[in-house]
Amino acid sequence: MSEPAALPLRVVLIGARNPLNIGAAARAMSNFGFLDLRLVCPYDVAFREAVSGVGAGRVLEKARVHEHLAEALDGVSLVAGATGIAHRHFQQPVYRLERGGRLLRRHLAAAPAALLFGSENHGLSNDDLSFCHWLVHIPTRAAHESMNLGQAVAVCLYELARSPLAARRLPDAAELAPDEEVERFTGVLLTMMETSGYSDFGPGPATVEKTRRLVRRLALRIGDVNLWTGILRQALWRMRRAASSEAPKD
Amino acid sequence: MSEPAALPLRVVLIGARNPLNIGAAARAMSNFGFLDLRLVCPYDVAFREAVSGVGAGRVLEKARVHEHLAEALDGVSLVAGATGIAHRHFQQPVYRLERGGRLLRRHLAAAPAALLFGSENHGLSNDDLSFCHWLVHIPTRAAHESMNLGQAVAVCLYELARSPLAARRLPDAAELAPDEEVERFTGVLLTMMETSGYSDFGPGPATVEKTRRLVRRLALRIGDVNLWTGILRQALWRMRRAASSEAPKD
Repeated sequence: MSEPAALPLRVVLIGARNPLNIGAAARAMSNFGFLDLRLVCPYDVAFREAVSGVGAGRVLEKARVHEHLAEALDGVSLVAGATGIAHRHFQQPVYRLERGGRLLRRHLAAAPAALLFGSENHGLSNDDLSFCHWLVHIPTRAAHESMNLGQAVAVCLYELARSPLAARRLPDAAELAPDEEVERFTGVLLTMMETSGYSDFGPGPATVEKTRRLVRRLALRIGDVNLWTGILRQALWRMRRAASSEAPKD
Repeated sequence: MSEPAALPLRVVLIGARNPLNIGAAARAMSNFGFLDLRLVCPYDVAFREAVSGVGAGRVLEKARVHEHLAEALDGVSLVAGATGIAHRHFQQPVYRLERGGRLLRRHLAAAPAALLFGSENHGLSNDDLSFCHWLVHIPTRAAHESMNLGQAVAVCLYELARSPLAARRLPDAAELAPDEEVERFTGVLLTMMETSGYSDFGPGPATVEKTRRLVRRLALRIGDVNLWTGILRQALWRMRRAASSEAPKD
């Protein structure tokens, strides 16, 4: 898959407790091409275990640890906070991730931004929140809003990396067999139906047009159409050979 | 946040080895409102540990275990397989998740579908793949394609749950202060600038129009505008009081 453009996003984990979550966040960052990880007051043991974990990778090796959030935000001009809770009364606007992601992408095209994630148990504190321009909420269902930290990071970064254009491309256009091959297959099919006697007695399509529509509904793919043509041709050959050996000899 | 419409998607984990991943997949399903989990040949210990794990929740409790993939696909009419690898030569079309998600959503509006995830180490086998109509690939970077299983499930389900409409809404429209409150603030500001003498000597905006534009660039939010008006009014009152006590008494 093509390399996504490197966006100047900084991921900031505040007070993370679980080394597996720190490792998972770093892995998702590497997957989606975001390499700037900051940890604010991680539980020391958790951080050391995460760094020594299998496959921690370069993101975690290069991660910087800060004592205060303000130090971790040096140089960024937009700060967004991720929250698992939509209904809590926040002082800032709370955007759904689809919208927050769009605003972040727009900003990142010109300047660096930070996305903050709070601890597994308590999320972002009021002090953390006061650094945020706005908050972003992953659209989970009300009955089970709170996401796992590593998964929340992965989902947010996917939203930033995803390409709306990729969704819009016409489905299957490149994979469908060209019409002439489909038509050749249809011809062989018609001959086979006639040779086998299906056209006289079968309950199926009676006309060329009906048969053509029947074949078009298969949406045969490049490559496949020739396989099918070959399969029918062989059956046709066998039928003709059988017919010729049955023919009366005089 | 509003409940997403329940889509008839079945998530099928094949040969999952790690109880944490099984638990994480179930948690993401619950987060995004997909409740039908099937496990094909999970490592027995892994499954039992996952079910007994803290917060496994209803999705995992109700998960069904099958010996063969075919049994897990009973009743679905579209089968998509998730692959971490974009460049491997597959027999089926491989769509980026943005596009595959769109095709899945379209299908799920009318009929059930299944999304398959292979084991952590080997992904989907050739036998598993032969059940798939097409494959879906999360757009990770080529240098680090392979995602953690629990995170891959979360990202795929987010793509299905996300609402393109939510991204398109105008930013901030609902949060901006109404014009009359902004104008009232502007009036108080102008009075304060005059009372303080700023209008005569300051280097700043000289006209009402310039001041109005200066204020509009703040994009004041509902609630905030009245706070600012109050702050300036208080300063104005203090200045006037000081001025009246300084006035010569005769």
